[in-house]
Amino acid sequence: MPSEFELIGRYFERPAPTADLGVGDDAALLPVSAGTQLVVSTDMLVEGTHFLADTDPRLLGWKTVAVSVSDLAAMAARPRWATLAVSLPAADETWLAAFAAGVFDCCESFGLELVGGDTTRGPRNLCATVFGEVPRGQAVTRAAARPGDDIWVSGQPGRAGLALAHLMDGVALCDRLREECLAALHQPRPRLALGLALRGVASAMLDVSDGLLGDLRHILECSGTGAIVEAAALPLAALAASGADAALCRRCLLAGGDDYELLFAAPPRHRGAIEALSARLGLPLHRIGELTRERERLMLREADGTLAAPAAYGYDHFA
Amino acid sequence: MPSEFELIGRYFERPAPTADLGVGDDAALLPVSAGTQLVVSTDMLVEGTHFLADTDPRLLGWKTVAVSVSDLAAMAARPRWATLAVSLPAADETWLAAFAAGVFDCCESFGLELVGGDTTRGPRNLCATVFGEVPRGQAVTRAAARPGDDIWVSGQPGRAGLALAHLMDGVALCDRLREECLAALHQPRPRLALGLALRGVASAMLDVSDGLLGDLRHILECSGTGAIVEAAALPLAALAASGADAALCRRCLLAGGDDYELLFAAPPRHRGAIEALSARLGLPLHRIGELTRERERLMLREADGTLAAPAAYGYDHFA
Repeated sequence: MPSEFELIGRYFERPAPTADLGVGDDAALLPVSAGTQLVVSTDMLVEGTHFLADTDPRLLGWKTVAVSVSDLAAMAARPRWATLAVSLPAADETWLAAFAAGVFDCCESFGLELVGGDTTRGPRNLCATVFGEVPRGQAVTRAAARPGDDIWVSGQPGRAGLALAHLMDGVALCDRLREECLAALHQPRPRLALGLALRGVASAMLDVSDGLLGDLRHILECSGTGAIVEAAALPLAALAASGADAALCRRCLLAGGDDYELLFAAPPRHRGAIEALSARLGLPLHRIGELTRERERLMLREADGTLAAPAAYGYDHFA
Repeated sequence: MPSEFELIGRYFERPAPTADLGVGDDAALLPVSAGTQLVVSTDMLVEGTHFLADTDPRLLGWKTVAVSVSDLAAMAARPRWATLAVSLPAADETWLAAFAAGVFDCCESFGLELVGGDTTRGPRNLCATVFGEVPRGQAVTRAAARPGDDIWVSGQPGRAGLALAHLMDGVALCDRLREECLAALHQPRPRLALGLALRGVASAMLDVSDGLLGDLRHILECSGTGAIVEAAALPLAALAASGADAALCRRCLLAGGDDYELLFAAPPRHRGAIEALSARLGLPLHRIGELTRERERLMLREADGTLAAPAAYGYDHFA
């Protein structure tokens, strides 16, 4: 049986050209660029909570890194380095090789270098910390949105939720959508190019990890605004084409987690720029509502004009 | 039942005066000082592997941060910030309040600010990532030791191992030593002042987390040297005073993990400075051997002059 150090050497040590010192010492040494702020995010994925025991380890490696890259994208930060702590029940080398391949795939796709971590025995638990850089003062936080700003969401939120409904509850989905939804769940693509392009455009931004409305509420809390979301503006058609129940599709879109789309606010004067950006990136950007002055009041306006508080917001690990 | 976000707000949000943005957004924003390198280390503690289910949560909070601070000390880096990812089976607020108190105790003791993290449900798993700074070029790595350098170790390695032998196997220890050993195991004191003072003095350094000889081997591998450790120079007397079996004491000293003492190499010309430092810090520093030219050959010399390879090196999670 290989030792912990052999496992690290075999699967997790690769050159980290821009780090001053990478995997293999007590700590990594990183040359943070002058004039930037370091941007740091940590996410922990737990078997049974975030993924099933039989999840393809290569996709899981990808996702372990991707969910944190998504946080950097949501700050408009450029990814630089990552550390990875892994707890595993046994030194299963087939699993490890596939998992590591997925980790490095994702790192390479988004410009990250793995510079350190920890490997230990225990229930399967994966914890990535990612380090990005942003020119000083250009990060997009949750706190600077203003009443009157538009609310936008990227891509197709709700697909990961539908995939979960399919896997857990046997909800039937047409072939094409099923593949798309499973890919959204298992191999999320952080919206990095979008996040970087929204510097100076978005007034507030976050990634949808726990549910669109629940995450929108964080912007309202941090920025001290309210919001009205327009049901008619939600990108429901593509989900409905899956053949799944319309109410389930809507619930997945508004309160399903794990999509890693970007949700952002921007002043109306940027509408043209955002539409041009959508065309340039080949990524739909949906204007789904507006921020209001009514502090932390989140309302849904139906197509018939009725206003009501949402029935569900999102996922809460301890609710 | 409080939500995940209420728990974070209640137990893990405190002011982080030097961070540009702390807990509560997608990522933290940190102003790394000009002229420094960022020093990053991650450690994961798992219930059943690193601690027992009934461990005092306040001590566990301390230790979760302390083991990573120890890595910064071993690089001669000054602690600045930390993130903490926590997986818990339930939102037990009594446990969380005590755990968080221990976390912040340790952070305050060593100048760390908690700036982010993750909270999720699952088997108990605690993962801290710490961020330190070191003036560019002054970090002490594992790679620059040279044949002829002395080998030093701080304090009293072996106490945590004896405490484990007491807890797991019922080994009897005299009252005074038992308290001391349990404190070493449950509330390790990272040797930060020592680590910082060894800039420009130590040629290589690491903290003893997996066993003195096993960790020494990492210096040999990275620096391309061998070593002879002198049995007669080992600080065994204090352990033997516990009343435990002499062979067990020696095994705990040489191969017991979890002590977080600093093990370092330094050229003989620094002996006087190191002894003065020991007096200034009130911390014993033991010169226990010498590095040799015989690449990665680690030998123990007994009091009678016989040389032999060690019987045990340390702890390996997957061995």
